[in-house]
Amino acid sequence: LADATDVVGGHGGGKIAEQDGSVADLGEWGVIAALQARMPKGLSTMVGIGDDAAVVSTPSGSVVAAVDQMIEGRHFRHDWSSAYDVGVKAAARSLADIAAMGAANTALLVALAVPGTLPASWATALADGIAAEAVRAGAGVVGGDTARAGSVTISVTALGELRGREPVRRSGARPGDVVAVAGLLGHSAAGLALLTAGLAAPAGPAAPAEPAPSAGLARLVTAHLRPAPPYDAGPEAARLGATAMIDVSDGLLADLGHVAAASGASIDIATSALPADPALIEAAAAVSAARPGAALEWQLTGGEDHALIATFPPLTRLPPRWRVLGEVRPGSGVTVDGKPHPGRPGWQHFRP
Amino acid sequence: LADATDVVGGHGGGKIAEQDGSVADLGEWGVIAALQARMPKGLSTMVGIGDDAAVVSTPSGSVVAAVDQMIEGRHFRHDWSSAYDVGVKAAARSLADIAAMGAANTALLVALAVPGTLPASWATALADGIAAEAVRAGAGVVGGDTARAGSVTISVTALGELRGREPVRRSGARPGDVVAVAGLLGHSAAGLALLTAGLAAPAGPAAPAEPAPSAGLARLVTAHLRPAPPYDAGPEAARLGATAMIDVSDGLLADLGHVAAASGASIDIATSALPADPALIEAAAAVSAARPGAALEWQLTGGEDHALIATFPPLTRLPPRWRVLGEVRPGSGVTVDGKPHPGRPGWQHFRP
Repeated sequence: LADATDVVGGHGGGKIAEQDGSVADLGEWGVIAALQARMPKGLSTMVGIGDDAAVVSTPSGSVVAAVDQMIEGRHFRHDWSSAYDVGVKAAARSLADIAAMGAANTALLVALAVPGTLPASWATALADGIAAEAVRAGAGVVGGDTARAGSVTISVTALGELRGREPVRRSGARPGDVVAVAGLLGHSAAGLALLTAGLAAPAGPAAPAEPAPSAGLARLVTAHLRPAPPYDAGPEAARLGATAMIDVSDGLLADLGHVAAASGASIDIATSALPADPALIEAAAAVSAARPGAALEWQLTGGEDHALIATFPPLTRLPPRWRVLGEVRPGSGVTVDGKPHPGRPGWQHFRP
Repeated sequence: LADATDVVGGHGGGKIAEQDGSVADLGEWGVIAALQARMPKGLSTMVGIGDDAAVVSTPSGSVVAAVDQMIEGRHFRHDWSSAYDVGVKAAARSLADIAAMGAANTALLVALAVPGTLPASWATALADGIAAEAVRAGAGVVGGDTARAGSVTISVTALGELRGREPVRRSGARPGDVVAVAGLLGHSAAGLALLTAGLAAPAGPAAPAEPAPSAGLARLVTAHLRPAPPYDAGPEAARLGATAMIDVSDGLLADLGHVAAASGASIDIATSALPADPALIEAAAAVSAARPGAALEWQLTGGEDHALIATFPPLTRLPPRWRVLGEVRPGSGVTVDGKPHPGRPGWQHFRP
């Protein structure tokens, strides 16, 4: 499995390995064969790509499933994201949802709509990104569909396995529980701010470009282009007895708001518990348009890092990667240091 | 479940029931709530829409999964298909793949990308179509994602359950087996030909329009706009001992070609076994540009009816809805009355 991303045109012969032409030149079957050759099979896969449907093992007697999509011009820009970056991010968004239920990822299905004029090498680099992130999460790629469209849309369905544990839902947080996070907060938002301000070059392997101002800032840009959710922290939280969990896709406060609402409780975050993150502080200083406190703002409201936030009973001994940020209280809503946080809470795709 | 398609704005209150404005007017959460209210929960659903991921029961210890997509301008036209039609067809394409493995459908996940200017009523009618077809197949709708894009793309992932049986793959056909079909052949292609020739008005509930020339022709147009695969024939074929199965999405000969190739055998179809279908004969006469033999050609090469074709051991007693069309032989490829069939075999999305 670990070598899956190194497979180049192993299935379908020499023509496919070249990828000189466009997707239309290669034809649907050529594209499918080239994409398929790059995909990891997966340890849970009983029937993989190539039949009417896949069959995936679910020894616990249930399957966890989520779908998410990435759309050109909406979720990524070709001048910032390489095809590989887009593949990683498209996979990560769905894989993180499975982890946030406390489940282990087992399989992905990918629906890909692309213009016929798209270089075939872009499509295969996208597949390499999807494959690499699937391998990192322990999942195979078991099915897909390709079609032609005016712009690129990638829809990824992830399947997961609870391994005998109950799913960790959003609704189980109880007053007295602690709130803890595994993974990065605010890095993706800071990376986006650097890209928007023209202060950093994209870092994708297909677009090496000029070096970013510093290694710290470059890491923020990479965090935006290729998020790396801590997938195994999801099943770990379930084992530790997490009462509720969600991944940070819209922002810490917005996503904690979903947990608070579903649980019928309030959640308070202590800013003193958030790490003083040197890279965020450097980025805040670099982005001239940033308000004072930008580093904290990114941590509280920046989405797309896909960190996992979970609530645990008060005396739970947490491994070091879980950082306690606050606590669950009676009431409703989310507060910061006991006070409502000003500003917009979340992200709305249909409103500017 | 049977009433799921009658639910209008039951979740989220009066504003959502109105659907006067655009998708952008309603906002992402408004759209999601309106779509969600229309979706059947499903008997296998343990955790449905509203958490990071769904949980679906899989008592057999495996899940069958397939994804397919419908793209505006590529797979449907707004002047021919109502939103309800598009919803039915988008769901049917994936649901038929699950049936073709011999599995019962349990759940759908829907990724929807739409322009912000799209009327909200179009999105909700689409959801009604998806919901109705999901109910017909016995599936719940357990997850989804909505986003804004330049044109409409609907990606549907279907999940199914084998109920303790082995999956029926494409590769198990053996010389001596009979080839049989359940469902319609050529109706969708004939309906498309009628629409293309301007000889029939679309029949969708959102676009009642003028009556088609005859009830028979109207049924063909409906078959094109809203295919009705015989989902329960899939598990039935598995119970009867089917050795291979596929659904007709690309055309009878093209899809039998996949079975023949995967099975390392040849398949011969007897044209005398195909029904003399009065509606197809009427349509062939009506479409002035049609070659002689158009009715037979639609049956042999027309796709998108999503009939199920299966191979069975020679002495299998088949229920009446399974019509024997031919047999599996040693060799390779597909023949008609013992001879190769002229013309293009299949459908390629990336080539015109």
